[in-house]
Amino acid sequence: MVTAGLVITLWCVSKVRGAELLYRDRDGDVVKYNVDTEERTVLVTNKKFEMYKASKYQVSPDMKHVLLAYNVAPVYQFSYTAFYIICSLETPETWNLNPPEVRNAQLQYAGWGPRGQQLIFIFENNIYYRSTVESRSIRLVSTGKEGVIFNGLSDWLYEEEIFRSHVAHWWSPDGARLAYATINDSLVPRMELPMFTGTLYPMGKEYHYPKAGEENPVITLYVVNLNGPLHTIQMRKPEDPRISEYYVTMVKWATSTKLAINWLNRAQNISILTLCEATTGVCTKKHEDESEGWLHRQNEKPLFSKDGLRLFFTRAIPQGGRGKFYHISMSVSQPNTSSDTLQSITSGDWDVTQVLAYNEESQLIYFLSTEDGPKRRHLYSADTFGSFNRRCLSCAMSDSCGYISGSFSHNMSYFLLSCQGPDVPFVAVHKMQRDTESESQERESMSEVFKLENNEVLRVTLDSMQMPTVEYKEISVDDYTLSLQILKPATFMETSHYPLLLLVDGTPGGQTVSEQFHMDWFTVLISSFEVIVVRCDGRGSGFQGTNLLHRIQKKVGVFEEQDQKSALSFLLKESYVDKSRVGAFGKVYGGYVTSLLLSGEETPVKCGAVLSPVTDFELYASAFSERFLGLPKPDPRAYAMANLAHRASQFVEKKFLIIHPTADEKVHFQHSAKFISQLINEKANYTLQIYPDEGHFIQSEATRQHLTQSLVNFFEECFRLPERVFEEVLEEESEDEG
Amino acid sequence: MVTAGLVITLWCVSKVRGAELLYRDRDGDVVKYNVDTEERTVLVTNKKFEMYKASKYQVSPDMKHVLLAYNVAPVYQFSYTAFYIICSLETPETWNLNPPEVRNAQLQYAGWGPRGQQLIFIFENNIYYRSTVESRSIRLVSTGKEGVIFNGLSDWLYEEEIFRSHVAHWWSPDGARLAYATINDSLVPRMELPMFTGTLYPMGKEYHYPKAGEENPVITLYVVNLNGPLHTIQMRKPEDPRISEYYVTMVKWATSTKLAINWLNRAQNISILTLCEATTGVCTKKHEDESEGWLHRQNEKPLFSKDGLRLFFTRAIPQGGRGKFYHISMSVSQPNTSSDTLQSITSGDWDVTQVLAYNEESQLIYFLSTEDGPKRRHLYSADTFGSFNRRCLSCAMSDSCGYISGSFSHNMSYFLLSCQGPDVPFVAVHKMQRDTESESQERESMSEVFKLENNEVLRVTLDSMQMPTVEYKEISVDDYTLSLQILKPATFMETSHYPLLLLVDGTPGGQTVSEQFHMDWFTVLISSFEVIVVRCDGRGSGFQGTNLLHRIQKKVGVFEEQDQKSALSFLLKESYVDKSRVGAFGKVYGGYVTSLLLSGEETPVKCGAVLSPVTDFELYASAFSERFLGLPKPDPRAYAMANLAHRASQFVEKKFLIIHPTADEKVHFQHSAKFISQLINEKANYTLQIYPDEGHFIQSEATRQHLTQSLVNFFEECFRLPERVFEEVLEEESEDEG
Repeated sequence: MVTAGLVITLWCVSKVRGAELLYRDRDGDVVKYNVDTEERTVLVTNKKFEMYKASKYQVSPDMKHVLLAYNVAPVYQFSYTAFYIICSLETPETWNLNPPEVRNAQLQYAGWGPRGQQLIFIFENNIYYRSTVESRSIRLVSTGKEGVIFNGLSDWLYEEEIFRSHVAHWWSPDGARLAYATINDSLVPRMELPMFTGTLYPMGKEYHYPKAGEENPVITLYVVNLNGPLHTIQMRKPEDPRISEYYVTMVKWATSTKLAINWLNRAQNISILTLCEATTGVCTKKHEDESEGWLHRQNEKPLFSKDGLRLFFTRAIPQGGRGKFYHISMSVSQPNTSSDTLQSITSGDWDVTQVLAYNEESQLIYFLSTEDGPKRRHLYSADTFGSFNRRCLSCAMSDSCGYISGSFSHNMSYFLLSCQGPDVPFVAVHKMQRDTESESQERESMSEVFKLENNEVLRVTLDSMQMPTVEYKEISVDDYTLSLQILKPATFMETSHYPLLLLVDGTPGGQTVSEQFHMDWFTVLISSFEVIVVRCDGRGSGFQGTNLLHRIQKKVGVFEEQDQKSALSFLLKESYVDKSRVGAFGKVYGGYVTSLLLSGEETPVKCGAVLSPVTDFELYASAFSERFLGLPKPDPRAYAMANLAHRASQFVEKKFLIIHPTADEKVHFQHSAKFISQLINEKANYTLQIYPDEGHFIQSEATRQHLTQSLVNFFEECFRLPERVFEEVLEEESEDEG
Repeated sequence: MVTAGLVITLWCVSKVRGAELLYRDRDGDVVKYNVDTEERTVLVTNKKFEMYKASKYQVSPDMKHVLLAYNVAPVYQFSYTAFYIICSLETPETWNLNPPEVRNAQLQYAGWGPRGQQLIFIFENNIYYRSTVESRSIRLVSTGKEGVIFNGLSDWLYEEEIFRSHVAHWWSPDGARLAYATINDSLVPRMELPMFTGTLYPMGKEYHYPKAGEENPVITLYVVNLNGPLHTIQMRKPEDPRISEYYVTMVKWATSTKLAINWLNRAQNISILTLCEATTGVCTKKHEDESEGWLHRQNEKPLFSKDGLRLFFTRAIPQGGRGKFYHISMSVSQPNTSSDTLQSITSGDWDVTQVLAYNEESQLIYFLSTEDGPKRRHLYSADTFGSFNRRCLSCAMSDSCGYISGSFSHNMSYFLLSCQGPDVPFVAVHKMQRDTESESQERESMSEVFKLENNEVLRVTLDSMQMPTVEYKEISVDDYTLSLQILKPATFMETSHYPLLLLVDGTPGGQTVSEQFHMDWFTVLISSFEVIVVRCDGRGSGFQGTNLLHRIQKKVGVFEEQDQKSALSFLLKESYVDKSRVGAFGKVYGGYVTSLLLSGEETPVKCGAVLSPVTDFELYASAFSERFLGLPKPDPRAYAMANLAHRASQFVEKKFLIIHPTADEKVHFQHSAKFISQLINEKANYTLQIYPDEGHFIQSEATRQHLTQSLVNFFEECFRLPERVFEEVLEEESEDEG
């Protein structure tokens, strides 16, 4: 059995506007679906995709053209290069998208603006603009230098650690202006990834990667005026000595001329949210945050009322003795004074996870939160006036869906609900209903009107299989709680003895115990090899306030190891767990914690597998390592303490599998190489698997399958009972006799 | 138990001159020993070595100074850099060895000339000369460019594949002239070795390495006159269109003004031996060789009579239907004609392996040969007149020693005999005795007069251990013979079943079955885990004439695989071999053949380990790959056929351990990386061990130990009987009951 977890694709829902929904269906056609009229129109046939071997598409806002991308080649997690062609949806006309004087250009980005046929594309780190598909391309900026100065795009650090997107440009809502970042990496040291195959002489792949404490990229923000003669204005960082070195973590247009920008100091504990005049570049402070721990969730976009005077955003708010939790703050500009009023709309010992929409008419704010429990996500609305009454809109469907994400149609009458678990994910359009005559709090509800995708094939397949059962446990430790998820084979019997596999994440601010649907290689272990799998969120994990989150400050690894060990201890008390067969797996930060667990004193873990493990935070990205450990200079002690090297001698009697793609651009192969050197010096055993020239986010299907198989084999072997061999020997003997 | 095989060190015997022997004894003192008078003088105390942390030494020819090298840092197999100091042996005076205007220079070479205190050293690829220790250094050549243009030193290719030495300069016997090579690598493509540790950002290590078919280094030879004003003359390559692209494979002074140079075409099948006038640079052809196969043993130095008119060298001579064997040719210049006479001094179906010395007085030539069997080396002398009678001088000691090497004292009255097996190696001085009155052939003999080293400690240690027993077998296959060496545990019983480990070499021209003493990780397997080890020399191997050697031309791998398989088949017929437990190990070329064996159809091999395997000859050094496969362009078929990639799918059910140092400068890690990519695509299993930043010739003791342990573990696990586990289970059960 190969993991089927990747089947859950949505065929790319691109936009919900008015009552029109745009998506690519299972046949590959791009469909416009009017939810009101139930009218279904095919805009782009799958044949057209096949004709151009296109794999990505964007329909123009006027619905008259489609932009197709082909020969798409991934760069980092989000970024890719591609060739583009524009096809008219009304005539057979097509236009290639190339900069002037260039043929067959491999572009770094191309996309429509918000109005008509306006579009931009990015080539060699410079931005080009076309006002219509037929007009000539105008170069908006020409400072770009490949791999060094990025215009409108993220460099590696911003893509992976700050924006979590390769897009670093933002259209004003009226399409009259484009804001873009210029990210200058010229002072950032270069990292070289060795590339072994493809050429007679291996060629290293160089890119700028700031390791902890090294020079960071320098980001500047510009707004270019697209109507009339080109005019570019730099947005001016607020003059504050505390943010001399800074990140820009968020950019969003508040109105057509006002740009919201969030500035974060390098230490990541002071942030300033400003509103900038696009016409002058003057930025005014709207909000400031300072934290003893690091500032979390800095790239989330605030919501603005249409007039730009009201502003909604999440920040950590003290909730009595339970510490701070993330709640919605509303900032209202007072027209006659320079000061704003700031109010918390929500409160409680749970986190708002996403602010979705603000309804101007009803003055309701819509958001997702963990109020129903940290492992769930439900849709709520709250009044932005009075006593801020709030109500859960999706809790009624808790039986079928506990983990929700989604987006509202422009007129806010529909919600495109994506249910991510606990069962097989599905996507449906819900109609929002409000009983305006009633004054009661339950006057709002939603109901499904159209099922976009219900993953029928996967659902049927799984129904015929013995899928794991899921249990949740909470363990109180001192003043905090560990959340556990336990996956058991369908055939589970209390009287049997099962091996135990711990899946370790531990990334600060992350969450591994949730009601999201997962299927992966470990599902095979549970179903086919009767393994019990456990996950645990402890100190350092997210979505449960900052008390749990910030405990690991300056001290990564220590508490994560303790908490994961506590989770194991809890399960090892159960009679059905075989104490002699305990394994652990983790990747990146989870690989770091897994390595700690495997080498810890009196650890029950017998065998551990790690994928792209972080072994030394000095070698890892500045923005990540410094967030938790500060700068490594002048005092490197926090880094030295966190270094896995201390543990090298404790791997001697362990089964330890390290898997690392050699061209891993996020966690360099260097991490494993350096650690292996230490293991060798300590005469420790290890087994290594490499994926030559593969990056962090493995692209090749063959490699993914090899990875799955390797992990299944490793744990299957680790968990194999000696009795099995015994039985085989007996069988062989009886065969010999017979 | 750790392998003790590396204990056999000789404390560096440097020179035998007259009856004086110079060596460093077990206490670390450098001793001058007069064999005639038995007088022993300590020249350099071990304290002096300790004072300077010196690890290498050279005593000046006038015995008045010693040159000490410290901070010795290996570069490739033979080359190293070091700091040098000269110490007077008579006064407390010392001199640092630095180029003018440079302090603390890390030199690439330093060494005395043949006369008095003259010496040279090499810095930044330029040669410096001092006529006495006190005189100032004169730069002899200044074209040197680090890593690109080498003066007096080999580049990587010449060091590893041509000269088998980093020294590429040669003193004239009178010290009046220095011949040196200039090796220009500027057109040779650069290879980058990834280096992972030591720096925050990994730094690649670049050097010029010609892969098959790529631009080779260009070598030029010069002679510089050291007496009087500096005068440099280039030695002119013979004008022959067949050697337009060439290697210089050998340089030796025939007389004080005549230089012998061997030129070999790039295809390595035409060689021209010339004698060059050092004063004019004019080179005259003395001998020419052409071969259908490749020309073998091209770097061996010919012997000259003192007047330079007689010349002895080995070449392949037809021996009836048995093919060609390597024998001594004597070329005598005829003073009155321009032509020379050429005679074969030896003949028979065995190889002369080394020509050692020519005694002008007795007109005897001394050499080593395999006349007593290909696995042996004995010392012979032969008349260079009449019917070329020859006699074996060391065969009488065959019981105690079967594999000899050594050197004669300058006056030829002593032979420093190094016995390399079959038992624990030893070194002794033998006196040569000739009964000049008798006319019989047995008039010559040798007798031991002084034991320099008998490895007593190792001998005593081994006496207390159960060391393997050694057997030899010969198998006739068609028209050739396979030589087998079988190592059995001391406790061997015909009625038991033993696992079998095949140690594969197979390097063309190499030999693995010989009476040389070996101790390594496999000795542990034999003694402690009762494994039978077998080695086999088949087609492609050396020291048995060219018939066997040249069969693999244009077709590497095929016959080697067949022959190794035949060796296994032979042993698998023995009742004491367990057919289900067969493993193989090989490194470099042997790793290639091991991989073929493991993946072959109907192979009995269950598990294989390879160290630095060659997987694709296109990635390997030009001089090596082209010797057997020709140029890869325009016809790459021979290379494609030899590529391991074809076999990738046949590793699916195998236990396959690949070990590769990542900074391997000889067989690039690229070989394993590329092959692993193919294995992954074929869903094949493999286990990898890397030694980060280690080179081909592993330097770190911890790494060597880890390697030993890994190989022992791998085969121990592979050879483990399921019954053992069965017994353990039974034991556990009885314990539980008790």
